[in-house]
Amino acid sequence: MDLYEALYTTRAMRRVKPDPVPDSVIQQMLDAAVRAPSGGNSQTWRFITVTSPDIKAQLGSLYREAFDELQSTVYKEANERAVAAGDEQAARILRSSRWLADHFEDVPLWFFVYTRNDPDGSNIFPAVWNLMLAGRGQGIGTCLTTILGHFKAGETAGVLGVPVERGWELKAAVSAGYPTGRWGTAQRAPIHPIVYSDGWGNPVPWTVDQPLWVEPEGFAG
Amino acid sequence: MDLYEALYTTRAMRRVKPDPVPDSVIQQMLDAAVRAPSGGNSQTWRFITVTSPDIKAQLGSLYREAFDELQSTVYKEANERAVAAGDEQAARILRSSRWLADHFEDVPLWFFVYTRNDPDGSNIFPAVWNLMLAGRGQGIGTCLTTILGHFKAGETAGVLGVPVERGWELKAAVSAGYPTGRWGTAQRAPIHPIVYSDGWGNPVPWTVDQPLWVEPEGFAG
Repeated sequence: MDLYEALYTTRAMRRVKPDPVPDSVIQQMLDAAVRAPSGGNSQTWRFITVTSPDIKAQLGSLYREAFDELQSTVYKEANERAVAAGDEQAARILRSSRWLADHFEDVPLWFFVYTRNDPDGSNIFPAVWNLMLAGRGQGIGTCLTTILGHFKAGETAGVLGVPVERGWELKAAVSAGYPTGRWGTAQRAPIHPIVYSDGWGNPVPWTVDQPLWVEPEGFAG
Repeated sequence: MDLYEALYTTRAMRRVKPDPVPDSVIQQMLDAAVRAPSGGNSQTWRFITVTSPDIKAQLGSLYREAFDELQSTVYKEANERAVAAGDEQAARILRSSRWLADHFEDVPLWFFVYTRNDPDGSNIFPAVWNLMLAGRGQGIGTCLTTILGHFKAGETAGVLGVPVERGWELKAAVSAGYPTGRWGTAQRAPIHPIVYSDGWGNPVPWTVDQPLWVEPEGFAG
């Protein structure tokens, strides 16, 4: 797969089929993940693949509690504003996020990603994103979630037997499976208003004329 | 460029030539960067491109102070251990990191990346890593650094005029330029000992047989 097609089309693909992800693909995604840089090449990371129905049931229950807590606190006002404003994109993200929570156990594969000594996330998220890009190349849809780490870190560590006393922290849980929908360009706000030149607020003297990838007409994803 | 070649060969390329990076490439890198996901598609990021010699001189001076502080505190013991153990890889990283500090002003382009409401880094580092991967595809070597944010956040914000009172935080400074060295596979520890199945410490029943990319013989980078 072309690098730029992957960079432009690796969106959150929450709705996936229950079909299992083959071991060979899991290996390949993880082997690509760890090529990412980490401070001093420390590689301080552990990846737990979760496919067991029993473990998924326990984590799914925690995930739904965390999801409800998030929606009723942090996102409460934003959700109300979005509903009031008729913001269809926000509504779509919320529906899709709720689908993922409701169907946690139907997702064939979850990656639970642990690190230590990485408070700002600079060591782990390049690797997490590599994992997701490598999955994209193999037709695997993924979604990066952080709510279990924020709301249910202790309980999650309990289910997975993580030695938190040695400093290991949950940084991400990534869902993975074959998507039910199609890949397409990730739509974003134009960049020239959020890029500054040599100091905050100095406009850049350009707009983007030639992106590295443009979705071809009739792109099937 | 092939996705997997990019994932396997985007290493920290600190030593770069002074040749400027064209505006068209800067635009393309940033446009690819923002395709990355962010929580609730919030896109809460600002990118400051730094090419001005005067601004680079001010930031370079801060960077060297931060670098010395890091080496004499956090990394002191690790450096001493590495020297005592004759660890050539660690020595190489340290030399290369020092080169970057000493030559901050000779690097043609720096990206200063700001966010807010992203304490764990999950919103920004996928975008930062996209920026670096897109650069790789255009022959631009990059290096992700975080030391200014850790040691000189206030001073850096002062130089760049960042409204920190509105919550903006420096998460990364990424160096960019045409590398003096060659691209090659990022060497990493094998993954099967750091991947667990359905719980901490459960070994996975596989090793990686078929990575998604293998460096061809005579690879010129």
